[in-house]
Amino acid sequence: MTDRNIHVQPATGHAVEDQSVEIVERKGIGHPDSICDGIAETVSRALAQEYIDRFGEVLHYNTDETQLVAGTAAPAFGGGEVLEPIYLLIVGRATKTFGGERIPTETIALEAAREYLDEQFPFLDVGKDVIVDVRLGEGSGDLQEVFGEEATVPMANDTSYGVGHAPLTETEQIVHETERSLNEEYAADNPVVGQDVKVMGKREGDHVDVTVAVAMVDRHVPDMDAYRDAVEGVREYVADLATEYTDREVTVHVNTADDYDEGSIYLTTTGTSAEQGDDGSVGRGNRANGLITPNRPMSMEATSGKNPVNHIGKIYNLLSTEIAESVVSEVDGIKQLQVRLLSQIGSPIDDPHVADAELVTEPGVAIEDIEAEVRAAVDDELADVTGVTKRVIDGQLSTF
Amino acid sequence: MTDRNIHVQPATGHAVEDQSVEIVERKGIGHPDSICDGIAETVSRALAQEYIDRFGEVLHYNTDETQLVAGTAAPAFGGGEVLEPIYLLIVGRATKTFGGERIPTETIALEAAREYLDEQFPFLDVGKDVIVDVRLGEGSGDLQEVFGEEATVPMANDTSYGVGHAPLTETEQIVHETERSLNEEYAADNPVVGQDVKVMGKREGDHVDVTVAVAMVDRHVPDMDAYRDAVEGVREYVADLATEYTDREVTVHVNTADDYDEGSIYLTTTGTSAEQGDDGSVGRGNRANGLITPNRPMSMEATSGKNPVNHIGKIYNLLSTEIAESVVSEVDGIKQLQVRLLSQIGSPIDDPHVADAELVTEPGVAIEDIEAEVRAAVDDELADVTGVTKRVIDGQLSTF
Amino acid sequence: MTDRNIHVQPATGHAVEDQSVEIVERKGIGHPDSICDGIAETVSRALAQEYIDRFGEVLHYNTDETQLVAGTAAPAFGGGEVLEPIYLLIVGRATKTFGGERIPTETIALEAAREYLDEQFPFLDVGKDVIVDVRLGEGSGDLQEVFGEEATVPMANDTSYGVGHAPLTETEQIVHETERSLNEEYAADNPVVGQDVKVMGKREGDHVDVTVAVAMVDRHVPDMDAYRDAVEGVREYVADLATEYTDREVTVHVNTADDYDEGSIYLTTTGTSAEQGDDGSVGRGNRANGLITPNRPMSMEATSGKNPVNHIGKIYNLLSTEIAESVVSEVDGIKQLQVRLLSQIGSPIDDPHVADAELVTEPGVAIEDIEAEVRAAVDDELADVTGVTKRVIDGQLSTF
Amino acid sequence: MTDRNIHVQPATGHAVEDQSVEIVERKGIGHPDSICDGIAETVSRALAQEYIDRFGEVLHYNTDETQLVAGTAAPAFGGGEVLEPIYLLIVGRATKTFGGERIPTETIALEAAREYLDEQFPFLDVGKDVIVDVRLGEGSGDLQEVFGEEATVPMANDTSYGVGHAPLTETEQIVHETERSLNEEYAADNPVVGQDVKVMGKREGDHVDVTVAVAMVDRHVPDMDAYRDAVEGVREYVADLATEYTDREVTVHVNTADDYDEGSIYLTTTGTSAEQGDDGSVGRGNRANGLITPNRPMSMEATSGKNPVNHIGKIYNLLSTEIAESVVSEVDGIKQLQVRLLSQIGSPIDDPHVADAELVTEPGVAIEDIEAEVRAAVDDELADVTGVTKRVIDGQLSTF
Repeated sequence: MTDRNIHVQPATGHAVEDQSVEIVERKGIGHPDSICDGIAETVSRALAQEYIDRFGEVLHYNTDETQLVAGTAAPAFGGGEVLEPIYLLIVGRATKTFGGERIPTETIALEAAREYLDEQFPFLDVGKDVIVDVRLGEGSGDLQEVFGEEATVPMANDTSYGVGHAPLTETEQIVHETERSLNEEYAADNPVVGQDVKVMGKREGDHVDVTVAVAMVDRHVPDMDAYRDAVEGVREYVADLATEYTDREVTVHVNTADDYDEGSIYLTTTGTSAEQGDDGSVGRGNRANGLITPNRPMSMEATSGKNPVNHIGKIYNLLSTEIAESVVSEVDGIKQLQVRLLSQIGSPIDDPHVADAELVTEPGVAIEDIEAEVRAAVDDELADVTGVTKRVIDGQLSTF
Repeated sequence: MTDRNIHVQPATGHAVEDQSVEIVERKGIGHPDSICDGIAETVSRALAQEYIDRFGEVLHYNTDETQLVAGTAAPAFGGGEVLEPIYLLIVGRATKTFGGERIPTETIALEAAREYLDEQFPFLDVGKDVIVDVRLGEGSGDLQEVFGEEATVPMANDTSYGVGHAPLTETEQIVHETERSLNEEYAADNPVVGQDVKVMGKREGDHVDVTVAVAMVDRHVPDMDAYRDAVEGVREYVADLATEYTDREVTVHVNTADDYDEGSIYLTTTGTSAEQGDDGSVGRGNRANGLITPNRPMSMEATSGKNPVNHIGKIYNLLSTEIAESVVSEVDGIKQLQVRLLSQIGSPIDDPHVADAELVTEPGVAIEDIEAEVRAAVDDELADVTGVTKRVIDGQLSTF
Repeated sequence: MTDRNIHVQPATGHAVEDQSVEIVERKGIGHPDSICDGIAETVSRALAQEYIDRFGEVLHYNTDETQLVAGTAAPAFGGGEVLEPIYLLIVGRATKTFGGERIPTETIALEAAREYLDEQFPFLDVGKDVIVDVRLGEGSGDLQEVFGEEATVPMANDTSYGVGHAPLTETEQIVHETERSLNEEYAADNPVVGQDVKVMGKREGDHVDVTVAVAMVDRHVPDMDAYRDAVEGVREYVADLATEYTDREVTVHVNTADDYDEGSIYLTTTGTSAEQGDDGSVGRGNRANGLITPNRPMSMEATSGKNPVNHIGKIYNLLSTEIAESVVSEVDGIKQLQVRLLSQIGSPIDDPHVADAELVTEPGVAIEDIEAEVRAAVDDELADVTGVTKRVIDGQLSTF
Repeated sequence: MTDRNIHVQPATGHAVEDQSVEIVERKGIGHPDSICDGIAETVSRALAQEYIDRFGEVLHYNTDETQLVAGTAAPAFGGGEVLEPIYLLIVGRATKTFGGERIPTETIALEAAREYLDEQFPFLDVGKDVIVDVRLGEGSGDLQEVFGEEATVPMANDTSYGVGHAPLTETEQIVHETERSLNEEYAADNPVVGQDVKVMGKREGDHVDVTVAVAMVDRHVPDMDAYRDAVEGVREYVADLATEYTDREVTVHVNTADDYDEGSIYLTTTGTSAEQGDDGSVGRGNRANGLITPNRPMSMEATSGKNPVNHIGKIYNLLSTEIAESVVSEVDGIKQLQVRLLSQIGSPIDDPHVADAELVTEPGVAIEDIEAEVRAAVDDELADVTGVTKRVIDGQLSTF
């Protein structure tokens, strides 16, 4: 047992699952904010990997500021066109010279972004529908000193905190899985479904409303009937999916802003609203666990694109979520766990100023019964903080 | 009494003032994220006013996506220089033609941004130290239909929510006032203090640590002694200021990352870290009440730059804060009040899907004693929702 | 015979072939200025074709202002890398709405540019080594009125002139063919030769110096010996080629700025100096006949990217060259012919203010002998002015 | 007498003044191409001066690639507005680090451009009507070696040539002085005259047509009558001015594209057509002597923005003009002189490969009479080649 400053205490208030109203949101990978998150994180991973390949270690960088300026499009049944391209500006800092060697940070960033867009957005023609630009400066010189020798735990370079929780509530699971399944399983068979899927879940008591906005892809929609069919297909699929996660009553709404009489429907040429009027930027959408959860404390931190070696806000947000999940799976009797980590400038990041675990226990379980177990589990996870860094670089952890 | 759906209920858990650990943060107006917030909101107000002057009503726009790409600077005792300019890209959508008339939205945006920067940043030479660029598209056509006739209450165009609370805790007050006072009263007499002031407050039990990072302005710092004096001056000023808001013990830390031996200090040429490596964007910093408060529910909404007529997220975040403050000042016996407003697409914005007031009462006061009074006060405020729009346009409400 | 104002007169002075010193230059397609010319003209043709496909006629546009900002590269034997990408900004004006239909001018431009670069520059990875951006505004409204009904000859919208000559001198032929053959025949077998080939020819009396600068492609150059071989290969090829065009003595110099001792050679990663420090823009390189010929009058007109329907400067530069070539091939006894066309605002473009033919005749031939024949040939060509427009759009006429 | 390779020979053909048709053009300082020339040269001078101030010598740079993207404006009697700003991108290369010191090349460029625009364009609001952006890279490393020690004559780094002539013909004088006088003397009293003045002179035999296009400034034009008065005022002024330079018959045409019936006139808000649809870039307008003269050989070289220490094309174009003027003023009996200088890579720039003086003598004067005198005068001027560099940096020589 270490002497890490770990607090285990009862949560004040009901578990979210038991609160009367719960709101949960997820912006899918094709939402303009998520496109920025995705590119920022992809560029981050490409840079980290390049630094490792060249120098055996990750150098300083932060690429957490991609800005998307929406385009203009004229979607049409059977296939429309993009009139004015989307403009994507990758912004950040990166070490450009090390040991006398120049690192092609900007071309690495461009290539990584292009690959990501090509893979994730089959209906977006990179270089035609979207211009990708880049402005990577060099960081401030002081930062060069923060990273120590390899294999040591870095020092926190800021006072920051992270927060995570587990397990997900039913509504959270539904919202998260709806977007994931639509964009993967369902889209594979139904290319009409674009990548810009936004899901809002609202639970009042035992009734859950799932509102889904799906950017339909015009080349796969020959006419209005086909559009209605596509909408109905999504509704049925999601309604079915939801039953896997809850016994509560679920109502699914799809593209509620449509007005068939006016011919106003959610049709796109590229599968994302970024083609027409919706700008985006990093850190404005999903939190590190993939959700926006007003019923829970959230960090403002823009996790995507941050350096996973020493950016304490990123690490602690991802780590607190991992700790919460791990503890809940290892320790019986926990109904809800929230973990909060607060860093201490100048101390090793595996030794936070305070690690705070707030528990709602299952009926019949007292905090005292499991406190030691929880503390030990948190302690173990903290000891493995550098594992988070590794998993981020390997692409095993999603940041949005 | 209307039939608005207003819930009044006890908070689950302790008031923040009574929790064992409290964290509060405020990014000052010169922080790169706040610069973006400030410009986004300034541009928004300029456009709103221009539309009113020309057409008697506010047209559709959203200018909530300014991106700042940091510059490079070489600060030096007595005055250094900016090597590579900051690049500021104003992004958004605005109605460019109305009733056959073209509206110069982009030049309005540029002029408003320039005026804002000139006023707020005496050490930043706009056009030399910072390039201001703009990309304002036109919104999607559908949006043209949302606004109704003048004088009616707009319909909500999205499912969104806002959250506000009152009163501020002691730590919140200290953090907020430290930044405001340093940037106004103190800077007036001490130009060495740059606009980039970041304040972090951490209360553990009855001890408050206030950590202040101040970008010192090099032309007002002849040497290292002067720098130390400037740091000490700020420390004393803040320590003194804090006593106005609390009887708790307060420790003030200023520019803790300095290393005098290494000559590594927080010196800037322009008064903001945007000159050297710190990028910024809208909505990543302070919430609508000017603070980042992990102990309280927060909205992810980027309030600055949004259209104050119909952007429900902006309106509800500002309104919920106003309601909380108003109710607390009118109704006795409230220790802490949190107000949450959830919109309903297609309904008037003065009639939210639910307005949720969570109370911690003073000892000896029962919820039942004041529930009706609270409900009535909330109801009154909701009725005046369009007043929020007006005050935003007039610049009476801060959004960050 | 029409009443076109055609002057036929003797040239004042010697034919260029007989002057004591002659200088001729050609920037190959991979020269930064030529890259811009090529893209400007490619975009122009794509727009013209799109307008014809949609509306049966070419609408107003001009895309004659591409700007190239050089990148940074680290070429190396065996293959180096681009560190900072080239930035290409396509600039111009185009009609974006016609008959209620929006035309995707910017995505057309981007796609055309990408295709051109992909085709012409096998070692340039578009989207990674080069960012292509675009800013196409709408032209001034007045211009809408210039084009008349289809099938009529347009009116000149400016006072402008064009100049062409024939036949090419020996030195001109050598310079032109050296670049063309290196970039086509030779490069097909020798990929080490990059697209940035610059040829300078200087004839003093009967000695011709041909100086060739070839951007060698690093992935095809394993070491310094291979580089020397590549240089020698080019030298031999060009020396051989030159004998096809002249009996004069020719000396060929290749990559004369190289300094083997210093290791300073002309090695590139992408085949163009645009990767490292050489910016470019339209109209700064070759004239419409593909050459820079200080011994002859030249037009300053940037031909590439101009609208071939009504841009009189473009049309007259191409047409005067065509006329010169045609007359020389049809009429015997001409040693040198220079044709100059001057437009008259508001008159049909087939009726220039003046068409000026300056002749040097072969020995024994008097101007009077062939004047009528020349006049008739010029007249015929002028009558077919709209044929130039057609051939430009079809890509049969090169503009640089 | 040195052994410089100076050829003095008779011109082949008539002096331009005696040719039957002569065309001359000048784009005024407010023409979009000239705006770019002016900024490129201003930035060049600012950088050169800064290098001298810091290091005692001019370092490597070239800033000859400014690109202007036109804006959109809505001019109106009494004062209109700019709808979309002009975008100006300063492009080039500059040494950013020398002797361990960083040089703020980009902020120097921005400041110089802003000052130039503020001074020259009273109706253009920089930062609102025009965005000034900058992309200055670093040159290729090799170039660092070209400049030798101070006070020595630099070596030519390219094969390039320059051409100049004297004296100006009457038509050339009229065209040049018309623009200069309108923009200086006349505009001082008549602010209605904008900076975008374009003058075309055409002489046929003894009749000169001067066609002037003047961008009238809307805030000084209350109505159509005032516009007609302004046009007539210019016409009279220019007609009067022309008589100072010729006894030939002169007809002056002003704003000939106007159509009063259609209300189509040349009205601008800012005094330049860059506000509405006319893009511009460096080197596309006037040659180094301020004129475009199709009757004479011209260099394609973009002189403005080039480094005046070692850019041989710039130096030789300016120097050949200076030599021509100087020789004509010193040596009697010269009707027309053309000077052409051709550089030799690796040789000192005061020792050109060939300096070619082509003369038309006054009646009764033989070449032989003055050949020695001309040769000596040319030789003297060549010896003072570094004086050109100095006068360029001091702003005493105009480049466009």
